Amino acid sequence: MAVFETTYRVTWSDVDAAQVVHHSNYFRFFERAEEAFYEHLGLGLSFFMKYGIWFPRIEVFCRYHAPARFGDKLGISLSIEEIKEKVVKYGFIVRKDDADILVAEGHVVVVAADKEIGKSIKIPSEIIEKLRTFKNS
Amino acid sequence: MAVFETTYRVTWSDVDAAQVVHHSNYFRFFERAEEAFYEHLGLGLSFFMKYGIWFPRIEVFCRYHAPARFGDKLGISLSIEEIKEKVVKYGFIVRKDDADILVAEGHVVVVAADKEIGKSIKIPSEIIEKLRTFKNS
Amino acid sequence: MAVFETTYRVTWSDVDAAQVVHHSNYFRFFERAEEAFYEHLGLGLSFFMKYGIWFPRIEVFCRYHAPARFGDKLGISLSIEEIKEKVVKYGFIVRKDDADILVAEGHVVVVAADKEIGKSIKIPSEIIEKLRTFKNS
Amino acid sequence: MAVFETTYRVTWSDVDAAQVVHHSNYFRFFERAEEAFYEHLGLGLSFFMKYGIWFPRIEVFCRYHAPARFGDKLGISLSIEEIKEKVVKYGFIVRKDDADILVAEGHVVVVAADKEIGKSIKIPSEIIEKLRTFKNS
Repeated sequence: MAVFETTYRVTWSDVDAAQVVHHSNYFRFFERAEEAFYEHLGLGLSFFMKYGIWFPRIEVFCRYHAPARFGDKLGISLSIEEIKEKVVKYGFIVRKDDADILVAEGHVVVVAADKEIGKSIKIPSEIIEKLRTFKNS
Repeated sequence: MAVFETTYRVTWSDVDAAQVVHHSNYFRFFERAEEAFYEHLGLGLSFFMKYGIWFPRIEVFCRYHAPARFGDKLGISLSIEEIKEKVVKYGFIVRKDDADILVAEGHVVVVAADKEIGKSIKIPSEIIEKLRTFKNS
Repeated sequence: MAVFETTYRVTWSDVDAAQVVHHSNYFRFFERAEEAFYEHLGLGLSFFMKYGIWFPRIEVFCRYHAPARFGDKLGISLSIEEIKEKVVKYGFIVRKDDADILVAEGHVVVVAADKEIGKSIKIPSEIIEKLRTFKNS
Repeated sequence: MAVFETTYRVTWSDVDAAQVVHHSNYFRFFERAEEAFYEHLGLGLSFFMKYGIWFPRIEVFCRYHAPARFGDKLGISLSIEEIKEKVVKYGFIVRKDDADILVAEGHVVVVAADKEIGKSIKIPSEIIEKLRTFKNS
C-alpha cells in the first residue's frame, strides 16, 4: 500500500507538563500530514475552493506507544485505508529516531461536505481519482 | 451507570476556519471534564503528587455527530467504562442546546505511570476505590 | 475606572514543559474575558452578526510577573483603556490565590472590521455607547 | 544587524473562525523561530540541560499588519535587539508572499532562570558569546 511520508519537529508549545507531546496534538500532526499530502497530489486549497467543499472529520482514533518530546523530529506516514463515495479513511503512523521507535498510530475518517449548506456530498471525481491512483501506486 | 456532568463554553480560539470547534479540541474538553471529575472525587493535584503518578493516555477515540460553534455551551458527561489494575477507561458524551443535540462521543484510556521513571504502575488503591464507588453509584 | 472580573481555571493543556502556563495562552485568557465582558454588556454573538463586524487585534502586549500552574484559579480583570471611532484598547490584569499574586498584565487593541470586505469601519454607536457607559461606571 | 531567517507554513488549526491566523499563534511562530535559531547556533536542547536553565518570557509584544491565512508560507526573521546579563530581547518580523507583505512584527524578552529553583540567573557566558557574535555578524 502506498504511503506518503512527511516530517515534523516538536516545538515547545506542543509539549505538556509531563514533558511529552500533549495527546491532542497528534491530531494536529495528522492534519499537517494530510495538508502536505494534498499538496503532493496537486490538490491545493484553491482546488477545494473551486468545488466549495470541506472535509470535516467524523471519526478519529489514536493509540500511543512511546512519548515524543521537545525537539524530536517525527516521521509521519499517511496511507489511504478506504475510499467511499463521500468518505475517506486515512491511516497514520508516527515514528521517531529515524523510524526506529513507534510513537503513535491512528486513523481519521473524513466526509466531503458542501461549504455553504454543510451537508455531506459526493467527493468530486477528480479528487477520488487522485486518491485511488495514490492508494494503488 | 453513574455519570459526572460538567459544562464548557466554546471560546473563539477553539474554532477553526470552518467556524466549528477543531476536532482535536474535543480531547482538551474531555481532559477538562476529567480534571473536574477528580476534583469532585476529592482527588486534587496534591493527591496525585503524593503518589508521584501521572495518567498518560494510551488510546483515544472520538466520533463527531454535529458541529459545535463559537459561544455554544456544551454539556460534557464522563462515565467510567472500565477499571483495571493499571488502566482506566473513561467514556465521554458532548451535547449542546440543553442536551438536545448530540455533538460528539468518545473514550480515553489512561494508564498509571510513575512520574520519575515513566513506567506503568498499579493505580493506588485509594484512587481505585473512589473510582469504583463512583462507577457503582 | 470600571473593571469587569472573570475567572479561569488552568487546564493541563495550557501548561508547557516548564510546568507553567505557556505565554501565548494568556492572550487566549484575555479573549475569554473579552467574550464574557460582551455577554455581560448584552452584546452577544448575534449582535455582532447583525452588524456584520469582527474585532481583529492590531496590537497585543503582555508582561509576566509570576508563573501560573496547572489547577490555578486565575482572576482576570478587563478594563477599557481607550475608545476611538474604530478602535478599542482593553487592559487586562491576571491574578491568582485570591488576587494576592500578580501573574500578568497586558493590553489588546482591536479595530472594527467589516466581515465581508475586511476593511476597518466605525464601531456601531450602540456598541460605543455601551462601552462608554461601562468605562465611566 | 544580523538576521536569522526561517519559514513556517500555516496549518488549518492555526486559523480561527475569521479564517486568519489566531493572534496568539504568532507567539508560537516566534518561539519556533527561536528554537531554529539556537539550533543554528549549535545550542541545542542538551546545551540548555547541561546548564540547567530555561528562558521564561517576561514580556511579549506583537503588532499585526496583514492577516495570514491557511496555507500561507510565512517568512519569519529573528534579530537580537538587546543582550544583558540575565536578559535577551529578540525582535521578530513575519512576512508572506516572498516577503512582499508585512504580516506582523513583535518582540519577546526572556530571562535566564535556574530550572530547579526558578530564580533568574546570569546567562552562561558560552551562550552570551554566541549571541553577541551573531548580533555583530
